[in-house]
Amino acid sequence: MRLQDKKVIALVAHDFEDLELWYPILRLQEEGATVHLVGEKAGEKYIGKYGVPAVSDYAYADVKAEDYDAILVPGGWAPDKIRRFPEVLEMLRHMDHYEKPIGQICHAGWVLISADIVRGRNVTSTPGIKDDMMNAGGNWQDLPVVVDGHIVSSRRPPDLPPYMKEFADLLADS
Amino acid sequence: MRLQDKKVIALVAHDFEDLELWYPILRLQEEGATVHLVGEKAGEKYIGKYGVPAVSDYAYADVKAEDYDAILVPGGWAPDKIRRFPEVLEMLRHMDHYEKPIGQICHAGWVLISADIVRGRNVTSTPGIKDDMMNAGGNWQDLPVVVDGHIVSSRRPPDLPPYMKEFADLLADS
Repeated sequence: MRLQDKKVIALVAHDFEDLELWYPILRLQEEGATVHLVGEKAGEKYIGKYGVPAVSDYAYADVKAEDYDAILVPGGWAPDKIRRFPEVLEMLRHMDHYEKPIGQICHAGWVLISADIVRGRNVTSTPGIKDDMMNAGGNWQDLPVVVDGHIVSSRRPPDLPPYMKEFADLLADS
Repeated sequence: MRLQDKKVIALVAHDFEDLELWYPILRLQEEGATVHLVGEKAGEKYIGKYGVPAVSDYAYADVKAEDYDAILVPGGWAPDKIRRFPEVLEMLRHMDHYEKPIGQICHAGWVLISADIVRGRNVTSTPGIKDDMMNAGGNWQDLPVVVDGHIVSSRRPPDLPPYMKEFADLLADS
């Protein structure tokens, strides 16, 4: 399994988009990756916007980005909360600096905006935050998946299949 | 993409297990498969046990099993409803007779029981219906995924990664 040595952070907060959180986690596990769910608190049950639960393995403050190979940011309303934590923004800046894969879908772009890593990058997102992405300096494209170096963006749940194909391939090669 | 010529039926009814319906659909789409959601009525919005929606493409009565290469049965409470439709049981018997891949997870085994295709097969399921599976003549095994010829069984949502790896590989080779 080509991802068996890879460790990935999956950020979580309440009101995540259920499939946008879970499809990527299960998909990477299929190829052997270890994926840790990381939220404000450890051992907390977070509930998706439709109601699917997810229990965090660790708290934001307790993980070291340098121990991980990639990071996933889900959509839904969770990004509105996730972007408020300085330790999360620091994690994203670490991943960006070391060119480790960053996956973001739907409203996840808000978190990358707050980490100021959208500037000059080709990105996509839900059309709902297109203006925010462009104001943050992103070159927004209306495509199912956009890959700019180590940053993989997607728009919405039906884009999950091409999104995760690109992300898994990138992680395997990194 | 190795599944681009494959057509798959994904059975649906209310109170499906949200990830057990959607992960397999998205996973097969990633490799190019066409997956049709098939419920009692066409164009109906079905709601998962946690609340994720799914809109059917076709009604059970309107699809011909011979037009498809494989079938998926989700878990949750949906199988309790799905097993009551003779046209669904006929679909499963067709798939079984022609040795086309049949994927079933969690409580989905109830549908295979009513189609009487569990007899003599190695299978798994949620432990909750282990007795029903054994009474139907199945050789029940407590494993994340069990493959017996063209029948792929799994127990629960955390088993989705190995379940779909086996199913996708089988479909590609069929």
